[in-house]
Amino acid sequence: MDMRKLMCPKSLVVVGATDKPGMTGNGTRSAVKGTNKDHVYYVSLKRDEVLGRKCYHSLAELPEVPECMLLLTPAKTVAGYLEEAGKMGIGAAVVIASGFSEERTEEAHRMAKEVEDVCNKYDIALCGPNCVGIVNALDGVVQGTHDLEKLVDGGIAVVAQSGYLTGGFRQPNADQLAYVVSAGNSSVCSVEDYMCWFADDDRVTVISAYLEGVKKPERLVYALETAAKKRKPVVILKAGESAKGSFAAASHTGSLAGNYATYQAIFKKFGVVACKTAQEWATTSRMFSVLRGKLPEKLGICGLNFSGGENTQFADNCERYGIDIPEFDQSTVEKLRAVLPSYSTPANPLDATTTLFSETEKVRTLFTAISEDPNIGIISLGNDMGANSEPKDITCVKLMTELRAEGKLLPTVISPTWEKPRHADFINQLENAGIPLVGIGDQGFKCIRHLLDFAAYKYDEHTLELALPAKELAEGKLSLSEAQSKAELTPYGVRVPGQALAKDAAEVDAALAKVPFPVVMKVESPDILHKTDAGAVKLNINTKEDALKAFDEIMANCKAYKADARIDGVMIQEMVPNGVEIILGINNDKMFGPMLLAGLGGVFTEVFKDASLLPCPISKKEAGEMLKDLKGYKLLTGYRGSKPCDIDALTDLMVKVSEYAVEHKNDVAEMDMNPVFVYEEGKGVCVTDALIVKRV
Amino acid sequence: MDMRKLMCPKSLVVVGATDKPGMTGNGTRSAVKGTNKDHVYYVSLKRDEVLGRKCYHSLAELPEVPECMLLLTPAKTVAGYLEEAGKMGIGAAVVIASGFSEERTEEAHRMAKEVEDVCNKYDIALCGPNCVGIVNALDGVVQGTHDLEKLVDGGIAVVAQSGYLTGGFRQPNADQLAYVVSAGNSSVCSVEDYMCWFADDDRVTVISAYLEGVKKPERLVYALETAAKKRKPVVILKAGESAKGSFAAASHTGSLAGNYATYQAIFKKFGVVACKTAQEWATTSRMFSVLRGKLPEKLGICGLNFSGGENTQFADNCERYGIDIPEFDQSTVEKLRAVLPSYSTPANPLDATTTLFSETEKVRTLFTAISEDPNIGIISLGNDMGANSEPKDITCVKLMTELRAEGKLLPTVISPTWEKPRHADFINQLENAGIPLVGIGDQGFKCIRHLLDFAAYKYDEHTLELALPAKELAEGKLSLSEAQSKAELTPYGVRVPGQALAKDAAEVDAALAKVPFPVVMKVESPDILHKTDAGAVKLNINTKEDALKAFDEIMANCKAYKADARIDGVMIQEMVPNGVEIILGINNDKMFGPMLLAGLGGVFTEVFKDASLLPCPISKKEAGEMLKDLKGYKLLTGYRGSKPCDIDALTDLMVKVSEYAVEHKNDVAEMDMNPVFVYEEGKGVCVTDALIVKRV
Repeated sequence: MDMRKLMCPKSLVVVGATDKPGMTGNGTRSAVKGTNKDHVYYVSLKRDEVLGRKCYHSLAELPEVPECMLLLTPAKTVAGYLEEAGKMGIGAAVVIASGFSEERTEEAHRMAKEVEDVCNKYDIALCGPNCVGIVNALDGVVQGTHDLEKLVDGGIAVVAQSGYLTGGFRQPNADQLAYVVSAGNSSVCSVEDYMCWFADDDRVTVISAYLEGVKKPERLVYALETAAKKRKPVVILKAGESAKGSFAAASHTGSLAGNYATYQAIFKKFGVVACKTAQEWATTSRMFSVLRGKLPEKLGICGLNFSGGENTQFADNCERYGIDIPEFDQSTVEKLRAVLPSYSTPANPLDATTTLFSETEKVRTLFTAISEDPNIGIISLGNDMGANSEPKDITCVKLMTELRAEGKLLPTVISPTWEKPRHADFINQLENAGIPLVGIGDQGFKCIRHLLDFAAYKYDEHTLELALPAKELAEGKLSLSEAQSKAELTPYGVRVPGQALAKDAAEVDAALAKVPFPVVMKVESPDILHKTDAGAVKLNINTKEDALKAFDEIMANCKAYKADARIDGVMIQEMVPNGVEIILGINNDKMFGPMLLAGLGGVFTEVFKDASLLPCPISKKEAGEMLKDLKGYKLLTGYRGSKPCDIDALTDLMVKVSEYAVEHKNDVAEMDMNPVFVYEEGKGVCVTDALIVKRV
Repeated sequence: MDMRKLMCPKSLVVVGATDKPGMTGNGTRSAVKGTNKDHVYYVSLKRDEVLGRKCYHSLAELPEVPECMLLLTPAKTVAGYLEEAGKMGIGAAVVIASGFSEERTEEAHRMAKEVEDVCNKYDIALCGPNCVGIVNALDGVVQGTHDLEKLVDGGIAVVAQSGYLTGGFRQPNADQLAYVVSAGNSSVCSVEDYMCWFADDDRVTVISAYLEGVKKPERLVYALETAAKKRKPVVILKAGESAKGSFAAASHTGSLAGNYATYQAIFKKFGVVACKTAQEWATTSRMFSVLRGKLPEKLGICGLNFSGGENTQFADNCERYGIDIPEFDQSTVEKLRAVLPSYSTPANPLDATTTLFSETEKVRTLFTAISEDPNIGIISLGNDMGANSEPKDITCVKLMTELRAEGKLLPTVISPTWEKPRHADFINQLENAGIPLVGIGDQGFKCIRHLLDFAAYKYDEHTLELALPAKELAEGKLSLSEAQSKAELTPYGVRVPGQALAKDAAEVDAALAKVPFPVVMKVESPDILHKTDAGAVKLNINTKEDALKAFDEIMANCKAYKADARIDGVMIQEMVPNGVEIILGINNDKMFGPMLLAGLGGVFTEVFKDASLLPCPISKKEAGEMLKDLKGYKLLTGYRGSKPCDIDALTDLMVKVSEYAVEHKNDVAEMDMNPVFVYEEGKGVCVTDALIVKRV
């Protein structure tokens, strides 16, 4: 299908054209406001003219084959029109009508299927059904029912499956929009298709998406990879954190690596700006758009406030969001001291005092001094920019816009403390100068956190790919035994404790040749479950002589314990020392492929939910970052006098596990290595237990 | 001092009266708008008349001794006027001038001290200096420089040390205010004094405070206790979470129980609504005021939204804030099914559909059905109430106000998703009906969380007191030995492992009489540090014979290891089994007294910061709640097949430790029990190590 015909059609037919108020009327009116208006045609069964334009009575009458069809007619007519359009060679369509898969009737689902089938048959790029369509402000074309006042060519391209969220996003961001797409039921084109289009269009500076689910993982990957490499922010509000409860108490990887967590892990890899609430999503998108690519080059913030109370709020909020407030450099302190009143201390965050702001030149010094500080990368101005302009606001607006134009001002955001009507003119001037207003209170610091994370993300430190599995996967599951599981991993260079079975005393010697001392010996018997009770386990054996003695004792003890037990022999295992316990796991997501989970052993992962997740393939660098993301990372770096762990060996292991998982993306369902012992630096790691579940 | 003369003076003198614009002019004008205006007098050195009123030239000339003095004159004149006022018997004063302790000059600090001394000498209740004074809207009196348009008698009494935060709070809440107090430098009357006044005044329905620090802990306790018993919400924004970093990595109790955490622990005990940001503080206060004491009786919420996207946002936000969304009862489902359109499922959260809202009677059924559901205690209506009223908004406002008046509507809040201009009329009608608008997006769910917590708090389940220490405490610190520390605790019924010293073999028998088998024996010697290396530790000794043998072996080994070592004997210790490790600690706050800390042992407390804190005395019920607050609580209730721990014995121990701490509030500085072993149910606990630091 040709997305271009959908996103930027040179010609359009509006079927069901009307001048009535409401959705269909809006659609009819908006269509002829576009730059393609000379190639916009109306079709109506009943009317000869709408809005002073000729109405055709059928598609067949049209003077040209339009590239796109906007269908304003009821659900039951849709498949028929699409069939006709397809035959004619119309390559794209927007269907507004609801009454398809979102309804719970058989008839509605049948119609939905029919629509999908027709589009697939003729390769029609379909937007909808059950949507409000598309606005392309960059090229000035509209095929949708938005009631548009004006088309501006902003930088944000937004797509949402929910009309409510598209609408809510659109309203405050009207002046910043490049595209608005209401994807509706996404029968054919889904959110990820539109994201690809946005990623490719270099006029788009910010991609914003509300995502319920993805159907085409390869398209999501393409969009995210392309955007990451172009340093274009992708701001996503992902629905369904609660429904999945992916970090619920269950211990095995499958349930830890639930759906929402999977998406978040993918987002992390590609540097997506992942938002949690609608307003955060809209405000963060706008922030990036207003900044126009100007990003902090350092991660330290300067808080510039006008009261002690505000300073305290600023510091508390920064702490909450992990934002660093560096001390001012001595040179900055001196420059500030020269202009600040005696009762203000030149410290960060700074109480700049309202008094100072009556003296413009001093304020200029203030801003430039901060902008020149070697440790500061961003300024947060604590200012409500309320509707009743204050003298300090006037000074701020004047100077900041001037300094920004002169290139003398660091990236700066306005962080209001209070929700209140703002001074529209001031906000406008500031935004035009590239200075955004972030959210209120701590919401603003979430925005700043997003900005800093985006600025710090380096795409070349990540493997910008996923090991997407085949579309059709075997449904059966087969658990391998511990020995089988370990045998799968050893070819990848994974170290597991050695073991060998001695069926009788004569085989002990041969078994010992395969397993280094010290060893553990235990009976191999399906009939003896409580081996310790039976006296069938011997620890810490260091010589052949002791091993032979242990063999005989185990045999004798077992006979005494249960005379009729089947005894297959004695398993001789390498006795590995304890190390710091780590859990590694793979959950092979049916859509996105293997996801590596890393956590500290046992209770930490299971009770404290301290685990990190990233899609495979994993680079060594990414493996290191995953470990650093653990709250208990300190346990690996040397805690309370214990030596630092062999993180190098552990990240090597993670890469090997990822390699295994990528090669087996179609036949491994899940995998657990629990525990992995990590020893002190230079002493490596050992996978003491492993369980692989195959798809068969 | 008499707070009444400050908060509700029957007569007032304004010194420095002026008709100029600005602060002093505002103060002059506002003073005569009060109900006490016939007893308001102006004093001015230069003027004979201000605002058409006679001006006196000195306090001495006044026709009566006013109860309060509002001082609008500069800092350097303040002490003089206060001295004169004190002599005359004026019992209260408000000082606006800045230039005292907030400045960093010696002169300013000298003046501040002088002001404080004069007030103390004459027992003057002083507000300020460096403040904007007091508005008492309930009685219609003003002694401050607020530029007031009207006085309404709302329910919120607010006090803040920061003028910026008082102002910011006041603006959006102007129609809900009972008192506004800007406490300024709080030289005499501090935030906690005003809170006491608010707690006692039954016309005040919500107490709101911005708190930087407290000077009079007994006053804070009085205010919180009184409010808790009256079920009056106390909404506090506490500054300084970051500065203290109280949960920083350090392991010992003192640093875990830092200052911010201490306040939060006190707040928890008294059911204070503790906010983190200014807007949250203002909005939550307003919510409580608008609700007028109508609280949810059940903790389940019903989300009533108008789109699938909004429903998802609702569920995700509820999960984030731990808000329970119960399934509808079958009876509710049936009632809803009768009115909802076919494409909407009667599930919670509910997509109520905009269509439905054109039929008022059906909407009535909807609201009453939900209000009658046995598991729902509160309704959240997802509605922006935007300035462009929508038909559904009109229906909502009409029906909700009607039903609320009829007593048929559960406590209901409006939770908007988007920041936008609201429909002032609708908001007004709803608020008048007791239906508040909470914050935007997740901020709204923070408000709801606060509401549910407040509704669930039961003051009679808490010890509403603190063990406040003496004002003057010894500055020295003395660490007791482990044995001394344990000896302090045993009289309180705290179980510690038994031990006894055998100086020679002849004493072994006597020592064994005091310590039950099995025992551990180790050399007691200041010269042998690595006891295990020296062969000077013997574990798991079960008979007298073995004990004597071990004694001899230890002696011989020590002699061989270090011939000239001083040997004091062999310590015979009860060998207690391992249990689940718990840390208990006391940090005796100099202001608020002993705070009990409870955490899971070692890494959990130190790396994962999983600890709870509560001021002593602790009831058994509170001890249980402290344990439930731990993220790792599951480890105590039986984890992965292990048996549940003896929580009864552990909470008993916590109460005993609290009793010890309360009795020693003036002489114990801190205390650590690490680890405490908790055994399975019925098997008790054992304090294996203890360290007490005394104040001397």
